Amino acid sequence: MAIFDMLPVKFSPFTSSILNTSTVVAITVFVTLLCACIVIGHLLEENRWANESITALLLGLVSGGVVLLVSGGKSSRILVFNEELFFIYLLPPIIFNAGFQVKKKQFFKNFSTILLFGIIGTIISFCLISLGAFLLFKRLGLTSLGIKDYLAVHIEHMKIVFAAAIGAIFSATDSVCTLQKDTLLPTINSGSSFFHVKVLNQEETPFLYSVVFGEGVVNDATSIVLFNAVQSLDFSDIDVFTALKLLGTFLYLFCTSTALGIAVGLLSAFGIKTLCFGRHSTDREVAIMMLMAYLSYMVAELLSLSGILTVFFCGIVMSHYTWHNVTESSRVTTKHSFATLSFIAETFIFLYVGMDALDIDQWKESNASAGTSLAVSSTLFALVLIGRAAFVYPLANISNCIKRRDGDKIELRKQFIIWWAGLMRGAVTIALSYNQFSSSGTSSSTVYSLLITSTIIVVLFSTVVCGSVTKPLINAVMLRNAKPTTSDAADFASLDDLRLFFLENGGSNDASGNQEAPRSSGFRLLMRYPTYTVHQLWRRFDDRFMRPVFGGRGFVPVVPGSPTGAADDQTS
Amino acid sequence: MAIFDMLPVKFSPFTSSILNTSTVVAITVFVTLLCACIVIGHLLEENRWANESITALLLGLVSGGVVLLVSGGKSSRILVFNEELFFIYLLPPIIFNAGFQVKKKQFFKNFSTILLFGIIGTIISFCLISLGAFLLFKRLGLTSLGIKDYLAVHIEHMKIVFAAAIGAIFSATDSVCTLQKDTLLPTINSGSSFFHVKVLNQEETPFLYSVVFGEGVVNDATSIVLFNAVQSLDFSDIDVFTALKLLGTFLYLFCTSTALGIAVGLLSAFGIKTLCFGRHSTDREVAIMMLMAYLSYMVAELLSLSGILTVFFCGIVMSHYTWHNVTESSRVTTKHSFATLSFIAETFIFLYVGMDALDIDQWKESNASAGTSLAVSSTLFALVLIGRAAFVYPLANISNCIKRRDGDKIELRKQFIIWWAGLMRGAVTIALSYNQFSSSGTSSSTVYSLLITSTIIVVLFSTVVCGSVTKPLINAVMLRNAKPTTSDAADFASLDDLRLFFLENGGSNDASGNQEAPRSSGFRLLMRYPTYTVHQLWRRFDDRFMRPVFGGRGFVPVVPGSPTGAADDQTS
Repeated sequence: MAIFDMLPVKFSPFTSSILNTSTVVAITVFVTLLCACIVIGHLLEENRWANESITALLLGLVSGGVVLLVSGGKSSRILVFNEELFFIYLLPPIIFNAGFQVKKKQFFKNFSTILLFGIIGTIISFCLISLGAFLLFKRLGLTSLGIKDYLAVHIEHMKIVFAAAIGAIFSATDSVCTLQKDTLLPTINSGSSFFHVKVLNQEETPFLYSVVFGEGVVNDATSIVLFNAVQSLDFSDIDVFTALKLLGTFLYLFCTSTALGIAVGLLSAFGIKTLCFGRHSTDREVAIMMLMAYLSYMVAELLSLSGILTVFFCGIVMSHYTWHNVTESSRVTTKHSFATLSFIAETFIFLYVGMDALDIDQWKESNASAGTSLAVSSTLFALVLIGRAAFVYPLANISNCIKRRDGDKIELRKQFIIWWAGLMRGAVTIALSYNQFSSSGTSSSTVYSLLITSTIIVVLFSTVVCGSVTKPLINAVMLRNAKPTTSDAADFASLDDLRLFFLENGGSNDASGNQEAPRSSGFRLLMRYPTYTVHQLWRRFDDRFMRPVFGGRGFVPVVPGSPTGAADDQTS
Repeated sequence: MAIFDMLPVKFSPFTSSILNTSTVVAITVFVTLLCACIVIGHLLEENRWANESITALLLGLVSGGVVLLVSGGKSSRILVFNEELFFIYLLPPIIFNAGFQVKKKQFFKNFSTILLFGIIGTIISFCLISLGAFLLFKRLGLTSLGIKDYLAVHIEHMKIVFAAAIGAIFSATDSVCTLQKDTLLPTINSGSSFFHVKVLNQEETPFLYSVVFGEGVVNDATSIVLFNAVQSLDFSDIDVFTALKLLGTFLYLFCTSTALGIAVGLLSAFGIKTLCFGRHSTDREVAIMMLMAYLSYMVAELLSLSGILTVFFCGIVMSHYTWHNVTESSRVTTKHSFATLSFIAETFIFLYVGMDALDIDQWKESNASAGTSLAVSSTLFALVLIGRAAFVYPLANISNCIKRRDGDKIELRKQFIIWWAGLMRGAVTIALSYNQFSSSGTSSSTVYSLLITSTIIVVLFSTVVCGSVTKPLINAVMLRNAKPTTSDAADFASLDDLRLFFLENGGSNDASGNQEAPRSSGFRLLMRYPTYTVHQLWRRFDDRFMRPVFGGRGFVPVVPGSPTGAADDQTS
């Protein structure tokens, strides 16, 4: 066309030439694929096997293949996998939204179990996977894979470091993957009513969701400590003192990260309550909530803390206080826009992993036969299976021994689901694997590439196979022995006497003066019903000291008949 | 602290080491400053001189200065100014939101005036500024500024190219700046009621807002054509044919960009209406609206069209059709989250410009005395003043001659405000200036640097001075001769006979068959009341053909008593 020839396509400087064409192409392709994922995910909603993450992964694989064909086998990567993109822009909204939407009561009720799994479980899994990887390297003969120019003692050391790195990478539960599991995630579905949670079976499995996801969050702090330990410690003379030091570091990381998240959340609540942003503009409220949440993550990263833990707790505090201090339209907006951003980020990650899987350079470099690749990846996956089984079953039984009430015990079928649901490895694993194995020296690049390609295989297999099987599996397991499940209501049903007791002692908001009596009896109760008592004490503290300062439900004017009441019941 | 020594800060690979520390620091600083801007902007809300953009600019300048002092005069740029960041991530949400929230009736009522200003006005301004810049270069003696190693004829050519580039850069009205002008922007302020527009004096100036902002949008397409012309044409033998070719290119760009935006908007409306995303999840609706809007911009850039025009029209179509097809909570969410994203992007841009102004490298490189710098920048600003005056007043008077009704005429005080409000130059100008003058050869780098620093001075001066004066100025001008202003209601008040006529001829939705009668009389009416008639014809076409297919108000079930009704009145 003449008009096309007339346009100097190479130079149109006002906007077009400023933008790098390859960037524009990459973004266009990704946004188009994201739209396709959303539409396909919507159409497959009723399907029991597929979900959005598998769709995104497969679509990513297909388009990666198309690009590979078009480019003549050169490269399938339109956008180079970038850890910064992942950790700075995609992960924070996902984790923040998880904290924002989590059922706080369930989460804190199971907090001891979560800590047990997240700390002890990760250490057990780490040790087993590292040991397995070490034996695997011994068996494969790491020398045959490229490291010939090292001394024997050096090779031995590298094997240990590699094994430990693999242990740390694969023992980290992928919290993004856990969230994606359709069956465990309390997705929000607002039709005419505002926050109507789907009643498939998410409502039946809040316990499992909080345990598996919470474990993934806590386990981030454990992983940082383990990784540092691998790098800085000499494993040949490990002693009690070193172990105690590591424990100290973990506690420091855990407490400071959590405290930072809570502090930022409270600051946002206090600021919005004091300054009344809503008086002038809704946008300012929403903007300040988004920015403060993001700030908490970045500050944590700046201080070398666990950004994931920080932003998670910031989300919890924001949903408990800040969210109630803003105007009604801000509430609707934040609730949905956080969920949407998280949803887009998740879909993007899976799409990205899918497209990245056909990274031809890594496959060429790895140089290994299909047999070796398959052997390494199946061994790694087997190690993940064993490593997880090795802590879920024992720890669940220990937890059962401690808990006296039947309702609190973790039955065998639940243990099975906890084991299964934490198996998926996703983008976090790939990002860590790239970070660990791609930047280092060149002499052992074939080993590095082999490890990266094996990681990709494990991720693809676990996401597609485990992901599609989980939903029907949980249905089958939960339906076969369909006992009444542990829901919040059933939990406290037998505790009418307790509630009565608290009422008698002024357990309501206007309790004043007679604090001594419930505290002394409180101790007795703490022994009998620890979770419930802690919850009651917290509620009282919250009502008397926190809410008057930081706002929260009941401490800001609520429009009668507003849909917020229904929403409150779910978030508190 | 012992615990700090224990932490191997240099290597904490799980999250911290993956992130480049300087990136984390830059993001933390920017997010903190953004929060500060929002809080300060909120506190200064009642102040008549300050607004958020000036706050952001000054805060940026101050923090740039602090960084400069801390780094010992090395560099004030934490984040290097990046055109890609600006054009890919910051500009699209701002322009999309402007289209989404614009008062469509006002905008299209003044469409002819907008086109006149956006096309003819830009060309006049471009010619004048280019001529002025050419004479300036001649006077300054460009050779004294670094281009000594060129032939005389080459220098002459470069002067022309430079002058034309400056003309193109400075004749482009900065649509972001126009939006920021607090007094012209219909900010949305939702307290208890949903979309309650502030009644300061934005309600009184919808005409001015639509003209000044609309001109900025249309002028993007003009600028692309002019820029291409500068680069590809030889100005020594310009003839009628070349001018016609340029006009053809402009029309092609304008029509295709607009058509693309409308097509994507309609596609989103049709898709959401057909697939009923809201049935399963609100998040999908919101996500698909965001992604489609962004996609329209990227596709336009990919095809070398005007992304700004495309995304603007996509926003208009989405607010007219798509927005009515989604669930109620999606409506609230999109309305506010688009506004919030745009608000954050705007504040970020001004902060960025402020921090960037102290770019010590450019100042050092420019090598010019303070006198020269000041002379160049004041000349440029004077050229902008003259160039704008040279088209606003004549074109407004031409437009007045064509329009017969008194209400449609642009009075002198309105002309003055149109002239004044379009003076501000902002981030778009800086981005274009960097793009044009920083990437090229090294021999004339001192001229380049001088031009960049002069641009920065002009931007700072125009934003701070014009920005803070505009609000009181408009108040003064509008109040001094306080006639009843041209509002939509007053406009059509005298047209009761017309409304009657249309009712008689079946102007309501259920018009059927008797299409011939109103059309023939419609032509007569078109001559007498062109805008009103076109509006009526469009309404009828919309009701009969478009809305049944693409949805829109009245064609999707509306919950009675919902706040959407109020919102509709403003967006349609």
